Amino acid sequence: MQALVYSGPGQKSWTDVPDPRIIDETDAIIRVTATTICGTDLHILKGDVPDTEAGRILGHEAVGIVETVGSAVTTVKPGDRVLVSCVSACGRCRYCREGSYGQCLGGGGWILGYKIDGTQAELVRTPFADTSLYLVPDGLDDESVLMLADILPTAYEVGVVNGGIRPGDTVAIVGAGPIGLAAITGAKMFSPAHIIAIDLADSRLEAAKQFGADVIINPSREDAETIVRELTDGLGADVAIEAVGVSDTFEMCTRLIRPGGHVANVGVHGKPATLHLEDLWTRNVTITTGLVDTWSTPTLLKLVHSGQLDTRSFVTHRFELGQAMEAYDVFSRAAETGALKVLLHA
Amino acid sequence: MQALVYSGPGQKSWTDVPDPRIIDETDAIIRVTATTICGTDLHILKGDVPDTEAGRILGHEAVGIVETVGSAVTTVKPGDRVLVSCVSACGRCRYCREGSYGQCLGGGGWILGYKIDGTQAELVRTPFADTSLYLVPDGLDDESVLMLADILPTAYEVGVVNGGIRPGDTVAIVGAGPIGLAAITGAKMFSPAHIIAIDLADSRLEAAKQFGADVIINPSREDAETIVRELTDGLGADVAIEAVGVSDTFEMCTRLIRPGGHVANVGVHGKPATLHLEDLWTRNVTITTGLVDTWSTPTLLKLVHSGQLDTRSFVTHRFELGQAMEAYDVFSRAAETGALKVLLHA
Amino acid sequence: MQALVYSGPGQKSWTDVPDPRIIDETDAIIRVTATTICGTDLHILKGDVPDTEAGRILGHEAVGIVETVGSAVTTVKPGDRVLVSCVSACGRCRYCREGSYGQCLGGGGWILGYKIDGTQAELVRTPFADTSLYLVPDGLDDESVLMLADILPTAYEVGVVNGGIRPGDTVAIVGAGPIGLAAITGAKMFSPAHIIAIDLADSRLEAAKQFGADVIINPSREDAETIVRELTDGLGADVAIEAVGVSDTFEMCTRLIRPGGHVANVGVHGKPATLHLEDLWTRNVTITTGLVDTWSTPTLLKLVHSGQLDTRSFVTHRFELGQAMEAYDVFSRAAETGALKVLLHA
Amino acid sequence: MQALVYSGPGQKSWTDVPDPRIIDETDAIIRVTATTICGTDLHILKGDVPDTEAGRILGHEAVGIVETVGSAVTTVKPGDRVLVSCVSACGRCRYCREGSYGQCLGGGGWILGYKIDGTQAELVRTPFADTSLYLVPDGLDDESVLMLADILPTAYEVGVVNGGIRPGDTVAIVGAGPIGLAAITGAKMFSPAHIIAIDLADSRLEAAKQFGADVIINPSREDAETIVRELTDGLGADVAIEAVGVSDTFEMCTRLIRPGGHVANVGVHGKPATLHLEDLWTRNVTITTGLVDTWSTPTLLKLVHSGQLDTRSFVTHRFELGQAMEAYDVFSRAAETGALKVLLHA
Repeated sequence: MQALVYSGPGQKSWTDVPDPRIIDETDAIIRVTATTICGTDLHILKGDVPDTEAGRILGHEAVGIVETVGSAVTTVKPGDRVLVSCVSACGRCRYCREGSYGQCLGGGGWILGYKIDGTQAELVRTPFADTSLYLVPDGLDDESVLMLADILPTAYEVGVVNGGIRPGDTVAIVGAGPIGLAAITGAKMFSPAHIIAIDLADSRLEAAKQFGADVIINPSREDAETIVRELTDGLGADVAIEAVGVSDTFEMCTRLIRPGGHVANVGVHGKPATLHLEDLWTRNVTITTGLVDTWSTPTLLKLVHSGQLDTRSFVTHRFELGQAMEAYDVFSRAAETGALKVLLHA
Repeated sequence: MQALVYSGPGQKSWTDVPDPRIIDETDAIIRVTATTICGTDLHILKGDVPDTEAGRILGHEAVGIVETVGSAVTTVKPGDRVLVSCVSACGRCRYCREGSYGQCLGGGGWILGYKIDGTQAELVRTPFADTSLYLVPDGLDDESVLMLADILPTAYEVGVVNGGIRPGDTVAIVGAGPIGLAAITGAKMFSPAHIIAIDLADSRLEAAKQFGADVIINPSREDAETIVRELTDGLGADVAIEAVGVSDTFEMCTRLIRPGGHVANVGVHGKPATLHLEDLWTRNVTITTGLVDTWSTPTLLKLVHSGQLDTRSFVTHRFELGQAMEAYDVFSRAAETGALKVLLHA
Repeated sequence: MQALVYSGPGQKSWTDVPDPRIIDETDAIIRVTATTICGTDLHILKGDVPDTEAGRILGHEAVGIVETVGSAVTTVKPGDRVLVSCVSACGRCRYCREGSYGQCLGGGGWILGYKIDGTQAELVRTPFADTSLYLVPDGLDDESVLMLADILPTAYEVGVVNGGIRPGDTVAIVGAGPIGLAAITGAKMFSPAHIIAIDLADSRLEAAKQFGADVIINPSREDAETIVRELTDGLGADVAIEAVGVSDTFEMCTRLIRPGGHVANVGVHGKPATLHLEDLWTRNVTITTGLVDTWSTPTLLKLVHSGQLDTRSFVTHRFELGQAMEAYDVFSRAAETGALKVLLHA
Repeated sequence: MQALVYSGPGQKSWTDVPDPRIIDETDAIIRVTATTICGTDLHILKGDVPDTEAGRILGHEAVGIVETVGSAVTTVKPGDRVLVSCVSACGRCRYCREGSYGQCLGGGGWILGYKIDGTQAELVRTPFADTSLYLVPDGLDDESVLMLADILPTAYEVGVVNGGIRPGDTVAIVGAGPIGLAAITGAKMFSPAHIIAIDLADSRLEAAKQFGADVIINPSREDAETIVRELTDGLGADVAIEAVGVSDTFEMCTRLIRPGGHVANVGVHGKPATLHLEDLWTRNVTITTGLVDTWSTPTLLKLVHSGQLDTRSFVTHRFELGQAMEAYDVFSRAAETGALKVLLHA
């Protein structure tokens, strides 16, 4: 088959590789009908993720058709159409038993396109198939569900649910890239009174408005704290979601929230931040971090199926699988190309 | 002033009465600009509520202007525009301190138009003004907030929040009168996948659709259990809200839910129901009851103010205060007149 | 091997049967070192459980040594000492993924000694071994952990946790048989201010005191409601746990609780109860039912291991496996013999 | 009357001052029968709390007898024996209505002995008496309840409840001074499997053992992370409570917890800490801060009354009120004197 192979920092190719095959009785082989590229794939390509070895097929999001299953697999069968989740779950360890699949101790967690071969390929082996694949409800096309492989559950679980958004809340979302927009999408499910998007790029703020933010702030021109306080009787936001991954935006989040408020960190951080405990110790704040656990994937699938959730507008560019190199080029120049998520289809 | 006075079973009149005056330092006197009639008022008129004595001014919902306040009142002042809640809160007892104002042990709870004179009048004395009145945000007219005096917080707290509705849930609402419609309105705030309205009257089911139900069932023609199971892989609804108040509909709710599901009773019951513990004991069900506590009133006001919640469509008929007798006539013949809620304005 | 075989209503024998063998790749065969008898076993013997066919080996609680495992089993291996839980979990269905193993849709739930052969035998086949067996921590003998196969998690999950017991609560436990005593044991973990045990048998009330109840009530001589109200400023208990399984005691529970209180039903009911909604609809009550899910088993094992939980006092009589008929006799005449739980060891 | 008056950095005296009198209708005057000294009082004396003006009477913890009440006070009356809480609650603002009295927007919060005159005096004026005083149950002496004025609710709410301690947890408490010991006391109420106390002083570790820690670690000799991991299958503690107030111990807490664990900060911080988001972003951690809200005071009183909670061992030294200067001397040299809390009685 052909696949997108990482060959060391800065190097990748769409090339011939051997077909994957069942290794464990709990594996499945999936024929990929749609996949996409994640910001994390770009990190790997830069060499920022040393755990990922040269020769690795990238990608951790897909929709596809089950081709074969191991002898212990009971919940999917060849021919089934499935969502391949970014997180694999052994289903047996204490974390999996608590629904915290991202912290799996039994060999799962985020492994696809990272520690084992991934989904940017014609075929992919998925371990722990019974607890890591999700049947796609009838009538939903690939584009309608592909965002549920990573970006939507990440923003929903780590941003929206960890943040504890409730009806009537004022929610500040710092960063309006794909994850920030997905957080807006998820936040709306709990009917906040206000969703405030904060970003330095006006084009992303414009997108934030399209996705449902009712207030937008560009800190290069406006003071976010002042605006948030004006909207909230001087108190601050109920919830702030960090969707950038640098210490400045994290610290901004801790300043934007009211006493009793929540900061939900979704951003991927490479460096420490300063936590101003000298101010925060009296303020009853809650700060959360998290890798996606994908416990919400069945919920999100139901919402797509019932028409309550439509994530197709995340897909700005479409390619055939064989155009993976071109797709990477477009996605990696998002500022110029306006790419949010790119779809690669078989 | 003039007011709607109950004079014993079956008897009421719009008549002259003395103006109310401050009794306790925590009282306020409110000039009513809008009030409405509740199904409970009809119960009192029938003589079903023996605690209510002849001579009582009815009504427990209003919007108005603060006329005078007692010397210990600090959070509202003459001239302020306020929502008068159906529930008064002493703010000091253990229940009030837990936000459970409906269970107030300090002289509050539901007292207006029941144990003390109510809001269907030109003026009303409201005890515990600091903890029982809510400032109306600028720019909102009476009709936009009056439903927050009772029907919306009741459906939201006792139905939606007690029921624990979560995104993706299938919610069955049994009874599509005003409370059932308010439950639909509240349920939507948590993004269920399906809202199923069940009622014997097609006109009410039609209203349920307008308010946001995506499935409607008339049990006189269809089997509710069968339809709910078909929608839910044979399991049943996640949440069922009882909004009628008779044992048959309560028991239907306990049959409609899935293992692990919730029944939230909102209906006013005069008789016991049968609880089929021989079936339910293994099914991990949760059943809740409740009088409204009105802890959610500030939340709902924020949502009206931000445009997320619009309850004006509950008002089907409008009258002047002096037309209170006519308003009662229209409201009491709801099946003919199509009345949901009637507005009486000054 | 030898086992206790049910041969139809009223008939059982300790007799020779074929050894169990691995059927599915996820099975294990366990050599039983300790087992016990449950009230449910007596129900089956009476013929009250028609799903249980003649020829069935009874018993759903055991400690033992893994003898062999199926090819897909990864978390236990021959020689491991394990607790066999009353509930088997497929680990793959929506209920198992939410930790609600008792409601398993994938072939698990309560099946041992009911729909498949059970633990009152020298060997037992346990399906879904990876998600249904629990490693026994080093240093703990059989008697220290056997109660965690059913009675402790049942009382803890369905009574204590469903009831939402919090520090400072007043908890009424109606029924002081083994399950009621286990509920007392579990309730203490959350530091209630008072644990009130209610039973008609003084001997059981005496046991309740030994297990930690600080108030005991015999309704044949005293009025439980009056005593509970006196203890609680006239309000009622925060939580009532039904541990009998008849409608009278259930209804007593609904009368004993305060506004805002919880009734947690643990009892096994054969008939409906009357739910006095005409009183309860205004009282903000929560009523729960449930089959044990055994999500708490790892927690309880930790507490036994750290010395916080000691359940050995439940074992009043000890027998060898071959004396199973005698053990049944003693257990079935608990009122005379004073049996709480009987231990059968290899 | 006489009182302990702060006269600027480093200066205090027990001296004659005018008696306090009712200012607002919601005030009460309390005759102090017992008070104590808090570490915060020492901070004020150092001049670290510039909001506190010279001339201020210090102290924010007391038990006493109601002398007089304002005209709007309804829940206490002259002669009642009350606990004076460190936090005053207006009872009307949004925070008070959510039970978050420490964040009161209506003039309450921590004000006693800080912004208004405090409890180290023969008489003290307490604002918002109805919502800030707690009746002492019959039969409890001053020493049994005085610790409930601050230290116990602080450790319980901000440490134990914010930390979300559950039965079976492993809890690490960093700092074994009075607050750390109170956190141990509170943690036990939820039956953790292990309570690990960490401190540099062996004498405090010894006290931690007396209060209920089962593991003690002195980081000057042992590596806390290693020991905690050994106890927890390599994962880390479920909950870590910071009870020191410096960045090193806060950062230690973030290293001690397992994925999915909680850090509850109780310490008073004067400087920022470093938050290692580069490690923590994937670990599903929750970090909380907080000032005490005293919502738990009624609960703790119930537990003292029922004998479940005994806090008398916190009192290591006893003085008469007039010996306040001597009591300060002993308390400020805690390392030498072994003082935990000093009691001053009338």
